[in-house]
Amino acid sequence: MAERTNFVGYLLYSVIITAVIYPIFGSWAWGSLYKGSGWLESFGFIDFAGSTVVHSVGGWAALAGAIVLGPRLGKYTKDGKTRPILGHNMPLAGLGVFILWVGWFGFNAGSTTAASTDIAMIAVNTNLAAAAGAVLAMITSWIKFGKPEVGMSLNGALAGLVGITAGCANVSPTSAVIIGAIAGVLVVLSVLFFEKIKVDDPVGAVSVHGVNGAWGTLAAGIFNMGGTSASIIGVQLLGIGAAFLWSFSASFILFKLVDMVVTLRVSPEEEMEGLDFSEHGGTAYPDFVEVSSTGSAV
Amino acid sequence: MAERTNFVGYLLYSVIITAVIYPIFGSWAWGSLYKGSGWLESFGFIDFAGSTVVHSVGGWAALAGAIVLGPRLGKYTKDGKTRPILGHNMPLAGLGVFILWVGWFGFNAGSTTAASTDIAMIAVNTNLAAAAGAVLAMITSWIKFGKPEVGMSLNGALAGLVGITAGCANVSPTSAVIIGAIAGVLVVLSVLFFEKIKVDDPVGAVSVHGVNGAWGTLAAGIFNMGGTSASIIGVQLLGIGAAFLWSFSASFILFKLVDMVVTLRVSPEEEMEGLDFSEHGGTAYPDFVEVSSTGSAV
Amino acid sequence: MAERTNFVGYLLYSVIITAVIYPIFGSWAWGSLYKGSGWLESFGFIDFAGSTVVHSVGGWAALAGAIVLGPRLGKYTKDGKTRPILGHNMPLAGLGVFILWVGWFGFNAGSTTAASTDIAMIAVNTNLAAAAGAVLAMITSWIKFGKPEVGMSLNGALAGLVGITAGCANVSPTSAVIIGAIAGVLVVLSVLFFEKIKVDDPVGAVSVHGVNGAWGTLAAGIFNMGGTSASIIGVQLLGIGAAFLWSFSASFILFKLVDMVVTLRVSPEEEMEGLDFSEHGGTAYPDFVEVSSTGSAV
Repeated sequence: MAERTNFVGYLLYSVIITAVIYPIFGSWAWGSLYKGSGWLESFGFIDFAGSTVVHSVGGWAALAGAIVLGPRLGKYTKDGKTRPILGHNMPLAGLGVFILWVGWFGFNAGSTTAASTDIAMIAVNTNLAAAAGAVLAMITSWIKFGKPEVGMSLNGALAGLVGITAGCANVSPTSAVIIGAIAGVLVVLSVLFFEKIKVDDPVGAVSVHGVNGAWGTLAAGIFNMGGTSASIIGVQLLGIGAAFLWSFSASFILFKLVDMVVTLRVSPEEEMEGLDFSEHGGTAYPDFVEVSSTGSAV
Repeated sequence: MAERTNFVGYLLYSVIITAVIYPIFGSWAWGSLYKGSGWLESFGFIDFAGSTVVHSVGGWAALAGAIVLGPRLGKYTKDGKTRPILGHNMPLAGLGVFILWVGWFGFNAGSTTAASTDIAMIAVNTNLAAAAGAVLAMITSWIKFGKPEVGMSLNGALAGLVGITAGCANVSPTSAVIIGAIAGVLVVLSVLFFEKIKVDDPVGAVSVHGVNGAWGTLAAGIFNMGGTSASIIGVQLLGIGAAFLWSFSASFILFKLVDMVVTLRVSPEEEMEGLDFSEHGGTAYPDFVEVSSTGSAV
Repeated sequence: MAERTNFVGYLLYSVIITAVIYPIFGSWAWGSLYKGSGWLESFGFIDFAGSTVVHSVGGWAALAGAIVLGPRLGKYTKDGKTRPILGHNMPLAGLGVFILWVGWFGFNAGSTTAASTDIAMIAVNTNLAAAAGAVLAMITSWIKFGKPEVGMSLNGALAGLVGITAGCANVSPTSAVIIGAIAGVLVVLSVLFFEKIKVDDPVGAVSVHGVNGAWGTLAAGIFNMGGTSASIIGVQLLGIGAAFLWSFSASFILFKLVDMVVTLRVSPEEEMEGLDFSEHGGTAYPDFVEVSSTGSAV
């Protein structure tokens, strides 16, 4: 059997998403050096640090990728049931979320691109939305699963952060709490929805970035401190729709092309063995005994 | 058997400590928006970034909690011997201490609440005390146990950081080294003391935050660059005592009430199985084979 | 058998490298409070944040240490073949590299020692060189080993960071990409070279810090935005040579003396058991089942 070149595939789509799909949408919402204001911008589209420009564009690309790639082996049983495939290291997942949380102060407050008195309020809004998202995702997972789930609570913090990214500079701290709280509920419901329709999204990227990017962009219009109106909401919805259409379509075509030309998916044998080994010639934890998929030590 | 609701317990006491016990003491030492200066503040109590306000208040709450909860199963054998229960991941513990160390520059220097020329000296004092604490705790553990112990050295860095928190803005860098060094010795002796009197404190929170918060507050009076006096020392001792009385008593009552109403402790079966599973429905490292308490793979 | 005191050895050389070897070279390149400009500085030696002063001095000390200590047991088989001894936790290695990457913005941009308009360009150069180093090391490892290797790609990022440290304030962003890219190729070739000549350097410190510190210092002369000349290149080479002669010789003598007086190396039994246990009386991961050197669970 010819060797698959999946690694080339993920380099290829990373470069094209970063160098083509993302900056084209960015120029619509934030303008460009060459053409000045973008068309969405000229309608008054509000997306301060990128709930749509950064997160929804990425989330809808993830949705296209997850559909083209298909579910992991063993994710859905033959009789249609869903099998959980757990993250291997929850403390590291928790650390990663907290690093993102701290980094978000740079991301949102730094989007002023200059020392500005807005920075304090942007940082406060960012923190409040993240905390509200974590608490509400915890409560939602508690109601849904009977236990406050760690992974969902962590995704709730990220959902709150994504949700406040568009409006961090033009909503009040009270609104930031409401936006983050709704993001925390939404992310759990969205993860369950995509699992139900058999889109296998191992880290919940579509729910965190796509769905809550859209929610945050709508919320930046609804909770705008300068007041809101049907036309403000309309422009926000236009931007949300444009991001979905552009990013999902362009990414779907991209993933299909990558799959045809260099292949997107490893062989079933490589998938069972683990991609660390087949793609990178190593294993992440050489010194530890791991549990096999049948539950025995390997 | 009725299901225990320990998780509700730890949400409950977290909220009450954060929203009631801590801010009441804070208002005594740092004043409040509504009532102006606090009573300790009006006596000249020195606690710049919170050795007492933040750390001792937390450490004495931890002491109350550890007493009410009692030791972990297996910590003390029937014939009164102490059994070590080791942290499962020392590299992660080390990383956590270094993240705290870096964060402390924000905590101490940021407590100026404005750009100020004090910031440089505060940052230098913070770093020197942490380093001195780590080195002296290492040496103390070496003398006591025959080996320079990793966990104690890490706790020594934290002890130095807690110790310099009160005086970081009003002691010299040389004094910061002395304060941190003494904190590093104190934390090892204090951990051994609480272990001896059978207060099971898995991470040494009482020793790091309670004992060294008190030491740092006293040291801020002793090493005050503007000179010291019996009355300065007296006020520092008054603040230390007030923190102990308030936080320990209020927390003791809180933990007792939580234990009565929703229970503080899981069942012995749940404790042996691990709280990750019983409280959160998951396990921290699903893919690794773990050592059981009897030493065999589980 | 008398107990070895390797731990004293590594405290001893750490103190002497930090307090004697490093600051003496530092005073040649960056001057000192007491004597003013250093002799290298007076020739116009360019090493803004320390490719040579910090990194090469450390890298050549590492080379001396690796030679005096000799290879780990089992690294080279009796018939002269090299056996890989893998890092035990690649996600933690990746995290460590990213923490260094973020810290480097402080290291390079903070070396202005004052708020300065140079900071933005220094930060951009730092980031570009790190990214170029990672990508080129990945490609080089792919060509050499048939797989894009994770550890080498991480070392490539560090190599790019070390390489841009000397010239971050006096080269253009385009030059930073070229400097980082060459560093990424160099680090892989250098690791293979030292492995071939049987210098066992487990983390590639000599290649990352020594070799790329030298390359970065040369590059700061070649790509100098104010123009270059044979005399600028000559002074850079002089500094590179002086660092090698001073640090390698002084460190070689230091490691030899430490080895004679308190011993540098643990006994073979302790080495097989692991230094965590023999030096610190503990193990890094008490709860996990580890793979023995023969591949079975221990």
